[in-house]
Amino acid sequence: MANIVVVFHSGYGHTQRVAQAVADSAGAQLLAIDADGNLPEGGWELLASADMIVFGSPTYMGGVSWQFKKFADASSKVWYTQGWKDKLFAGFTNSATMNGDKVTTMTYLWTLAMQHGGIWVSMGILPTNNKAATRDSMNYMGGYGGLLTQSPSDASSAEIPKGDLDTARAFGERIGAVARSRE
Amino acid sequence: MANIVVVFHSGYGHTQRVAQAVADSAGAQLLAIDADGNLPEGGWELLASADMIVFGSPTYMGGVSWQFKKFADASSKVWYTQGWKDKLFAGFTNSATMNGDKVTTMTYLWTLAMQHGGIWVSMGILPTNNKAATRDSMNYMGGYGGLLTQSPSDASSAEIPKGDLDTARAFGERIGAVARSRE
Amino acid sequence: MANIVVVFHSGYGHTQRVAQAVADSAGAQLLAIDADGNLPEGGWELLASADMIVFGSPTYMGGVSWQFKKFADASSKVWYTQGWKDKLFAGFTNSATMNGDKVTTMTYLWTLAMQHGGIWVSMGILPTNNKAATRDSMNYMGGYGGLLTQSPSDASSAEIPKGDLDTARAFGERIGAVARSRE
Amino acid sequence: MANIVVVFHSGYGHTQRVAQAVADSAGAQLLAIDADGNLPEGGWELLASADMIVFGSPTYMGGVSWQFKKFADASSKVWYTQGWKDKLFAGFTNSATMNGDKVTTMTYLWTLAMQHGGIWVSMGILPTNNKAATRDSMNYMGGYGGLLTQSPSDASSAEIPKGDLDTARAFGERIGAVARSRE
Repeated sequence: MANIVVVFHSGYGHTQRVAQAVADSAGAQLLAIDADGNLPEGGWELLASADMIVFGSPTYMGGVSWQFKKFADASSKVWYTQGWKDKLFAGFTNSATMNGDKVTTMTYLWTLAMQHGGIWVSMGILPTNNKAATRDSMNYMGGYGGLLTQSPSDASSAEIPKGDLDTARAFGERIGAVARSRE
Repeated sequence: MANIVVVFHSGYGHTQRVAQAVADSAGAQLLAIDADGNLPEGGWELLASADMIVFGSPTYMGGVSWQFKKFADASSKVWYTQGWKDKLFAGFTNSATMNGDKVTTMTYLWTLAMQHGGIWVSMGILPTNNKAATRDSMNYMGGYGGLLTQSPSDASSAEIPKGDLDTARAFGERIGAVARSRE
Repeated sequence: MANIVVVFHSGYGHTQRVAQAVADSAGAQLLAIDADGNLPEGGWELLASADMIVFGSPTYMGGVSWQFKKFADASSKVWYTQGWKDKLFAGFTNSATMNGDKVTTMTYLWTLAMQHGGIWVSMGILPTNNKAATRDSMNYMGGYGGLLTQSPSDASSAEIPKGDLDTARAFGERIGAVARSRE
Repeated sequence: MANIVVVFHSGYGHTQRVAQAVADSAGAQLLAIDADGNLPEGGWELLASADMIVFGSPTYMGGVSWQFKKFADASSKVWYTQGWKDKLFAGFTNSATMNGDKVTTMTYLWTLAMQHGGIWVSMGILPTNNKAATRDSMNYMGGYGGLLTQSPSDASSAEIPKGDLDTARAFGERIGAVARSRE
């Protein structure tokens, strides 16, 4: 069984709900970055033992949250020895706006994985983009580098569109399958 | 009166329709890159005389169309002498997918303007991203670096969502006002 | 006299020295983000009164430092009312590696300015990239979107290459001139 | 034996020389995009049969050459059926300037691989960035997402720095090893 860890920060619960959906279908463990940008005890050891690390962050002001970035900066200790080299990586981000620079966040998550000498797994599910498409269609948001989800600025985490959660589950299945294929 | 030129490539007419909406409200001239990636006679002179250059391209395979890129590569002759230095620039892109790497295209349009020593004008219109938002809301697509529009893969150019065309007109007004404020 | 503010974070003094060089030649005030990612008292008011805001950050792990990102996230209060709309923006970043994803940081600084409805000023100085170029040539690092500087991982802030500091001063002059031209 | 194809465009021979170095050490076949942006006969079939596709392009005006982009746009036929899904991908770019937006090109090569549902392999070799570093040090250019090389604007392809060619060979070995580890 591949050891997959979803390490994420969530400010208001939306990204956490997406993280849960991804982890459930990937067969992954969740590892939450707290409100001060720190990992719980044992967090770095869990990441060291992972075959695949999945990064998750809201998109705030066009990039990852500062708490996620504090985690990324702290990972420089691992970077010096390239401790995560050749691990698999993937990513997801949630924000209130349809585009709203989510792709910039995704590019950053890839950049971080590249600094660590990693191997990045794509979304791997074509967007639904024809006239028959609805907000609940598979990958309606149209992510390629990773999973993009959206929930309105005044929506609670309970109101994330069903299609985005279905897409999150399909993404989890896809990355879990890639991780297992390399064992 | 500020001299504004919208230089664009359109493969199937969608980007042309957006270009027209932007140009109409900005008080700009249209300059079409043809199917071989070339400008019409007098095109380079028109750009040389512009106060503001607005770049428009569809997003194909995660970036500008090759025809637009051929224009960009040909602009290296201007780059050598920094002939467009300190001009104002702005940009827009259209594709079939909600995100679909449109932001990567926008980042490229900015990069091209930066190579030319330019000054880049943002979208400047907040996205509509609450629960009351509809596909026809102002800047529903949520562009910041420039204008993002979307029309389904099986939609003709006549079927671009009304909200996106309204947003294109508002973007044209905004960049036209910035151009005139510098005279 | 244009009111220019250089808001920056520096972890080990290198970015601070570059910030000082930029500010001196631009005629700008310095505003330091502290080690906890906070501004000093009066910092937000200073930014509100600026005609041009210049962002500066080291590149850590492929992006701005978490302290700079905490500042960016805190600027969401200004974003809601687009309080910085139509201000001029520019940026710079320093890191130990020649490339090392400095361009990703610069793209983020632009993205942040775009979220705020700003107008972004390019480097505007061609790189020196022929065989006669030395490490001390003007814009040897080859930034376009903004100023890129580099100092080796074991170099103190006193050892930033002279050419990079000269380039920083030329960049300060350029952005200062653009700011004054709009008054 | 893993089937690796290096598909590249070279305008003046520099990128071709880097492509050769990468291919030699990776055990890969070379596939050149011609001056009109087309593949030779059998090119698409060769790519279809590959386990790993390596993209190579010069950086012109902040992005891939238009000829490379024409190839990318033509790959949309493969994209519709996701014919390259789950293949391994990697990339490299050469230009005359130290930074000069090479990272933007690399980000585009990754974006293209993501559109195709691929799996992206990083540079995987730490940069040399201390005071003892010379232009001939391993990964002096400091690429992470892929291989970055530089040769002065007035240098022939015979004058690419030795360190960059050594780095190209090390990159070829690294990606070849990753490709073989998945068989």
